[in-house]
Amino acid sequence: MKVKQGNKKPSSFSLLIDFYQLTMAQGYWQAGLENKEAIFHLFFRNAPFKGGFALSAGLQNVIDYLNYPPFDKSDIRYLASLKKEGKYYFCPKFLHYLSELKWSLTIEAVVEGRVVFAHEPLMRVQGPLIQCQLLESALLNLTNFSTLIATKAARICLAAKEAPVLEFGLRRAPGRDGALTASRSAYIGGCAFTSNLMAAKQLGIPVSGTHSHSWVMAFEEEITAFQAFASSSSSSPIFLVDTYQTMNGVKKAIQVGKWLKKQGKELAGIRLDSGDLVALSQSCRQLLDEAGFLQTKIVASNDLDEYEIYHLKAKGAKIDVWAVGTNLVTAKDDAALNGVYKLSALRNLGEPWRYTIKLSEQIAKTSTPGLLQVKRFYKNGQPFADCIYDEAKQLPAQLNYIDLSNGSSSVIDKVNQPSEELLTSIFKQGEQVYESPDLKKIKESAQKELALFRLEAAHLFEPFQYTIGMERSLFNEKQRMIEHTKNFQ
Amino acid sequence: MKVKQGNKKPSSFSLLIDFYQLTMAQGYWQAGLENKEAIFHLFFRNAPFKGGFALSAGLQNVIDYLNYPPFDKSDIRYLASLKKEGKYYFCPKFLHYLSELKWSLTIEAVVEGRVVFAHEPLMRVQGPLIQCQLLESALLNLTNFSTLIATKAARICLAAKEAPVLEFGLRRAPGRDGALTASRSAYIGGCAFTSNLMAAKQLGIPVSGTHSHSWVMAFEEEITAFQAFASSSSSSPIFLVDTYQTMNGVKKAIQVGKWLKKQGKELAGIRLDSGDLVALSQSCRQLLDEAGFLQTKIVASNDLDEYEIYHLKAKGAKIDVWAVGTNLVTAKDDAALNGVYKLSALRNLGEPWRYTIKLSEQIAKTSTPGLLQVKRFYKNGQPFADCIYDEAKQLPAQLNYIDLSNGSSSVIDKVNQPSEELLTSIFKQGEQVYESPDLKKIKESAQKELALFRLEAAHLFEPFQYTIGMERSLFNEKQRMIEHTKNFQ
Repeated sequence: MKVKQGNKKPSSFSLLIDFYQLTMAQGYWQAGLENKEAIFHLFFRNAPFKGGFALSAGLQNVIDYLNYPPFDKSDIRYLASLKKEGKYYFCPKFLHYLSELKWSLTIEAVVEGRVVFAHEPLMRVQGPLIQCQLLESALLNLTNFSTLIATKAARICLAAKEAPVLEFGLRRAPGRDGALTASRSAYIGGCAFTSNLMAAKQLGIPVSGTHSHSWVMAFEEEITAFQAFASSSSSSPIFLVDTYQTMNGVKKAIQVGKWLKKQGKELAGIRLDSGDLVALSQSCRQLLDEAGFLQTKIVASNDLDEYEIYHLKAKGAKIDVWAVGTNLVTAKDDAALNGVYKLSALRNLGEPWRYTIKLSEQIAKTSTPGLLQVKRFYKNGQPFADCIYDEAKQLPAQLNYIDLSNGSSSVIDKVNQPSEELLTSIFKQGEQVYESPDLKKIKESAQKELALFRLEAAHLFEPFQYTIGMERSLFNEKQRMIEHTKNFQ
Repeated sequence: MKVKQGNKKPSSFSLLIDFYQLTMAQGYWQAGLENKEAIFHLFFRNAPFKGGFALSAGLQNVIDYLNYPPFDKSDIRYLASLKKEGKYYFCPKFLHYLSELKWSLTIEAVVEGRVVFAHEPLMRVQGPLIQCQLLESALLNLTNFSTLIATKAARICLAAKEAPVLEFGLRRAPGRDGALTASRSAYIGGCAFTSNLMAAKQLGIPVSGTHSHSWVMAFEEEITAFQAFASSSSSSPIFLVDTYQTMNGVKKAIQVGKWLKKQGKELAGIRLDSGDLVALSQSCRQLLDEAGFLQTKIVASNDLDEYEIYHLKAKGAKIDVWAVGTNLVTAKDDAALNGVYKLSALRNLGEPWRYTIKLSEQIAKTSTPGLLQVKRFYKNGQPFADCIYDEAKQLPAQLNYIDLSNGSSSVIDKVNQPSEELLTSIFKQGEQVYESPDLKKIKESAQKELALFRLEAAHLFEPFQYTIGMERSLFNEKQRMIEHTKNFQ
């Protein structure tokens, strides 16, 4: 394992922490609780886009973050300067403690590119209470957005079916790093290309692109612009044909295409970026076919998302490549994945666990106690149920679980039924024990997983139905704790 | 001016460029057009959140970006490696040209923290065509998200009126840099505090925070948790009271508050994070008041946005501080500011400008030709109209403009009517000539500007009405070019 321990962390990671994590950390430290052993779980409460599922992403960012100590000298100096009502927030001894802190946590997580569901732990963090607490905001920040965008991309690619999707959201993405994360997640979710060179260079994602309206406008005539673009391209070009009037634009693209053929090049494609994409793509296809450009692709852009693509296809649009920007990189229709991070068990080292629960005025916000793991069961190679259980308890051979969607009870023969555990060891007491596959492999396994679940474009319109169960004794323990806590707190 | 020229740019900025900008750049270079002088404008087509206005932000990021040469050695190596169909995209001579490129552009921009409107240029970029083109994606990326979040924050603060707003969106923000940008913009838009230590440290934003549910759960009893938190706080604490049952939580907070008083400390506040915030805040207020805690603040969180805050206030919620996270940092209700960047004039050096226009199948996507500037007119100290005009043309004393919302025509006495130009010089031929005020000053001027426009919470529900005019001769020129282009392209 190449673990860069002890290095100064990159400044872009510095203090990726909410302030209250630090005031609480000082509190734990002052109360002598900092080394109590804690278990926190990261999970989301509702699948995004009303789709019933999510595609996990972001773990690599978490691994990168954890390979550096949390605080550098300038962080400590900054914290030492903070005060309120004339009093410093943090005492020097505590800051000294922080300055020497190194992560020593044990972390299990769902690896990137898995289909996951609401209430399932995506991450289980075990170790000193103070460290678990300090990590909360970073883990959520590094997981929520990545998973959200990977899920959006998966949905868009479901709608596009075999047609490749080009992610070109850089200009509307949330800042530079937002764009980088979005491009990475979009690729995991199924996009074939990105336009974002920063992401392409750093992550090895294939790049693609056409040209802009300004290219055409920089020349006095549209046809001259196409000729110049073709001349400057080492490979076969794609022309954007809607700068002035789309059908005129296509005719000029065809003229240049004929000229290209004579030189042994091809007219690779045309791009439509406005107007009625059904009618225009059909007319363009006809013109191209009549002129013998049967292989020339039609690329479409213009505020596309999964629904738009689905409906355009259903209405007979002749589009071969979909270029999706804004609505992909900003996860239109869902501001955020509502991932949360909750304490579920606590103990003094060597003592039994004390399970914890958070009630709420809203029942959906109640957390689950225990040391959670998820078992995914397969039938004929296809997943058919996930079961959340407490790893601290022995599971019976006949696993009884409560379906969280309807409260019904079922039994699975744990011994004879193929299954796997979703949470994998990533860190053991601070040491990295898992190395992510390269991004291309993550993408490939995500695509295999999506296929295994037999997700289809039709699932865009109603939540994907899949059984999420909670093992009966865990379920009962949770109910017992809810009652107990209501009565005693 | 502290301009760091010639330095290696921070890796987080490396290749913040869409791929097609580079294929076009090579095209311009090969066609000998790279040094044609161009004018591009950055503007948005619709105000976000159906609000009719936006609050400008992001310019500092643009300035930082432009203070470094666009390509470093590793960027050039990466570009040299890219190929398609077995052919390299970029020729070595062009890459050599890129490796020596330094920005030499003249840029005017609306400074940060101004109220701006659809169709107005936020930035005018003038200089070598190739440089203008290369910058497109970076300028949009660095402006769109910042402006969007500053606008959202302004709206949320309008709803909150005098009550302070705490931004605490780190965990749901789009990645680390997305969170940083969001916190900065939220502060400009009016938020009083951030929870994000990275933003606080890097940008000097005041921090604030309470504690989490896990703090309470880490203790066996809620009251012990409150006591321990109070003991560990150098200043007066705020307790989160809804971990189990809110009204029980408040009673315990009050008990600890009494104990605090004896030590000369105060119960600074309680926080509600779930349930019916109207009823709960009223009941909490009553309990607090009855116990003599008249000064204790009630902080509320739980998926808040401007509408929720407005309605909670209207229904009589007794809330003193609003903590807003997800819906602020992700700009809920609007995926992105739809900023675009369009070529509007071109010339060989020393020759007259050739104006350019982009038509579209969608009329709203048609661009405006010229060298645009915006004049804002004031009456009794209050802005009453913005007028877009062509700075290359002499303006008559009696300025005739067309109202873009309804096509009506008006006249302003340019000489006697107080006015200012919105676009300010930022770079002159690559040299920075503007230094941003510090962030606190930007925030203060933004708040003054919002007050000057007399924006009110009522404007959350219908677009703010304000006159955006286009000077008549510019308007006529645009119409003429639309007709001409329709006929001749």
